Amino acid sequence: MPFDWISFTTDYGLDDGFVAACEGVIGRICPAARVLHVTHTVAPQHVRRGAAVLAQTVPYLPESVHLAVVDPGVGTARRPIALATAMGLLVGPDNGLLVPAAEALGGIRTAHELRAEEFRLSTVSATFHGRDVFAPAAAYLARGVPIDELGPALDPATLVRFPDPATIAERGRITTEVLGVDTFGNIQLAADGSHVDTAGARRGTAVLVHLGGRTVSATLGGTFGDVEDGQAVVYLDSSGRLAIAVNGGSASGEYGGEPGEQVVLLFEASAATRR
Amino acid sequence: MPFDWISFTTDYGLDDGFVAACEGVIGRICPAARVLHVTHTVAPQHVRRGAAVLAQTVPYLPESVHLAVVDPGVGTARRPIALATAMGLLVGPDNGLLVPAAEALGGIRTAHELRAEEFRLSTVSATFHGRDVFAPAAAYLARGVPIDELGPALDPATLVRFPDPATIAERGRITTEVLGVDTFGNIQLAADGSHVDTAGARRGTAVLVHLGGRTVSATLGGTFGDVEDGQAVVYLDSSGRLAIAVNGGSASGEYGGEPGEQVVLLFEASAATRR
Amino acid sequence: MPFDWISFTTDYGLDDGFVAACEGVIGRICPAARVLHVTHTVAPQHVRRGAAVLAQTVPYLPESVHLAVVDPGVGTARRPIALATAMGLLVGPDNGLLVPAAEALGGIRTAHELRAEEFRLSTVSATFHGRDVFAPAAAYLARGVPIDELGPALDPATLVRFPDPATIAERGRITTEVLGVDTFGNIQLAADGSHVDTAGARRGTAVLVHLGGRTVSATLGGTFGDVEDGQAVVYLDSSGRLAIAVNGGSASGEYGGEPGEQVVLLFEASAATRR
Repeated sequence: MPFDWISFTTDYGLDDGFVAACEGVIGRICPAARVLHVTHTVAPQHVRRGAAVLAQTVPYLPESVHLAVVDPGVGTARRPIALATAMGLLVGPDNGLLVPAAEALGGIRTAHELRAEEFRLSTVSATFHGRDVFAPAAAYLARGVPIDELGPALDPATLVRFPDPATIAERGRITTEVLGVDTFGNIQLAADGSHVDTAGARRGTAVLVHLGGRTVSATLGGTFGDVEDGQAVVYLDSSGRLAIAVNGGSASGEYGGEPGEQVVLLFEASAATRR
Repeated sequence: MPFDWISFTTDYGLDDGFVAACEGVIGRICPAARVLHVTHTVAPQHVRRGAAVLAQTVPYLPESVHLAVVDPGVGTARRPIALATAMGLLVGPDNGLLVPAAEALGGIRTAHELRAEEFRLSTVSATFHGRDVFAPAAAYLARGVPIDELGPALDPATLVRFPDPATIAERGRITTEVLGVDTFGNIQLAADGSHVDTAGARRGTAVLVHLGGRTVSATLGGTFGDVEDGQAVVYLDSSGRLAIAVNGGSASGEYGGEPGEQVVLLFEASAATRR
Repeated sequence: MPFDWISFTTDYGLDDGFVAACEGVIGRICPAARVLHVTHTVAPQHVRRGAAVLAQTVPYLPESVHLAVVDPGVGTARRPIALATAMGLLVGPDNGLLVPAAEALGGIRTAHELRAEEFRLSTVSATFHGRDVFAPAAAYLARGVPIDELGPALDPATLVRFPDPATIAERGRITTEVLGVDTFGNIQLAADGSHVDTAGARRGTAVLVHLGGRTVSATLGGTFGDVEDGQAVVYLDSSGRLAIAVNGGSASGEYGGEPGEQVVLLFEASAATRR
């Protein structure tokens, strides 16, 4: 079979049967497919958060059809699409959700609009395209239906994309924004290791973090244990992004951190120039 | 194997190992079975909510043994049962949980009480029949044990059933009740498309919704996008039930909606009579 | 394949892609392995709670590699380990998490430190050893890599262990502590059936429960239905532990019950001596 795995990401929550209905549709169309659940508790309709979780997870998954539905526009004019990359396929709405993951998988090779009726359920509801349009498309793709049979090619340049989060690095200073907060309260920023290099900071450098109207004293570290219990640490997280944590505590519990919020990091001058 | 799939619905929550213990028991008895989780976060002991989620999901699942346990009466006299339908089997307590799903699968053909000790765990606890009685029964049924070997036949007329939710439709008016609220805050009602036809309403008709002591102005639409952001829409949802949503918002957040609560919909006279 | 199943227990929560990244790593290394999720909502870093859930669940699972990560010490000096028992393997941090489950599986036969770099991801992050160290180890073990190839043997006596919860039983009285609270609000205690025997209590005996500064009148029963609605019952739960429940209600909602909190049970003298 072309794809043994279908990964599945939504904002459907776990309390209803929505996820199971989609998984059931997949099981009927492509019984051999194995569904790997990424998350179904993206905050309702937070497309950017869904996009970030998916993009950070796909590099670790087996080659898959990645099915993702976070879709404030269900039932409106947004296009249902499938994307081909060098390392797998993606299926979902054309609202920005899939593009960052496609880039993490080597970039978009071709894009198609899901128009072919034979690869949908026979009745398509107005409000549950995950079950009626997207899950069937993913299942047929896993079974080996060529992507160009699902509908006409789209120019990838016409796809909806998010503006890149703004990060500016200069010597001693990084201006960036919050990408999200994880289960442990760690605040992930858009900046990555290249920005830390530009800032000239290194492990052990003291950092002043300006976030949500307050200033927090932190240390640039490799991991949580590099600072005392209850102290803030700025570190490169497991996705390669700069993040703020409190050792043994919750950074977001103490400092907030809304997605999109601006954060300024000022690295101790002496440490930066000493390098 | 007679059934490749076992669907699984409970109120066990996700924080304990209860779901996994049942899945493990299934894996030991019938290693080839694939477990498809419907939901495990039915509000504790809310049998009607579990029954509604299960009944709305099973039509989309592969042919399965449907294992469901929402059971305020565990350890009391309620009967453990298995039901055969034209499109699969159901296993769970005789408290009304399984009957709506059985009807969605074509109706009950035979019912059996789970009495045979060889198809239970060797030790049956007083409080965890999901693990000790129901999961083993589902696994043996998936493996091909005939349902009548699990225990004596029951007269389906003796099974516990919920009273049907009351819906009355007349020209310009539907009186119905709340079935439940989904993750997005959409309020699902018991009424369906046939009641809308009787009321003589059509897409675009204005509706006054009386719910919980308040009156909400809404529009009968096909999907959320048929009204402005923040406006209420009444629509046929993906299960074919009438539902109330707020475009870009949460209907239950604004209007409440307790399961069982009465709702009256008054459709604009002109629209109804114009038809 | 030596192990068809990998069970998986963490405090990663369900909102991020952390669980999926680990499952993806397993799928890449050992595609045939089936992952059985125990729970991923252990309260962050509550190692004892994770250990209790795992130990109570493993007896019901198929023979597995049990992968568990609840790890306040990630990125510090705690050792990554694998344990062999008579009934399966365990992989996780050396912080007490695995030992109770190992004992439930017949006791530790050998222990190894996970040092071999060829059985980790090629890049190991400082903060996500679940994905980079533990999941790969579990997958290679499932595939048949001998445990002693993963790293040097450890003396099991050097493993971190929790002190056993203190339970003292005497005629008419048990002093014990709270182990945890489940989804239904049932309060599980460390005491088991042997302590009830020592106390000389039997089904129907009245019990005074001292917990969190209050005294609750309860009955020693077999199951919830042995007392009236809203009444407290003390019973042996499905893991063989003494527990406190309220029939049709939530014991923890009414009486609290923090893990580690002391509980004293005084059994009715007449019942105890009448025996």
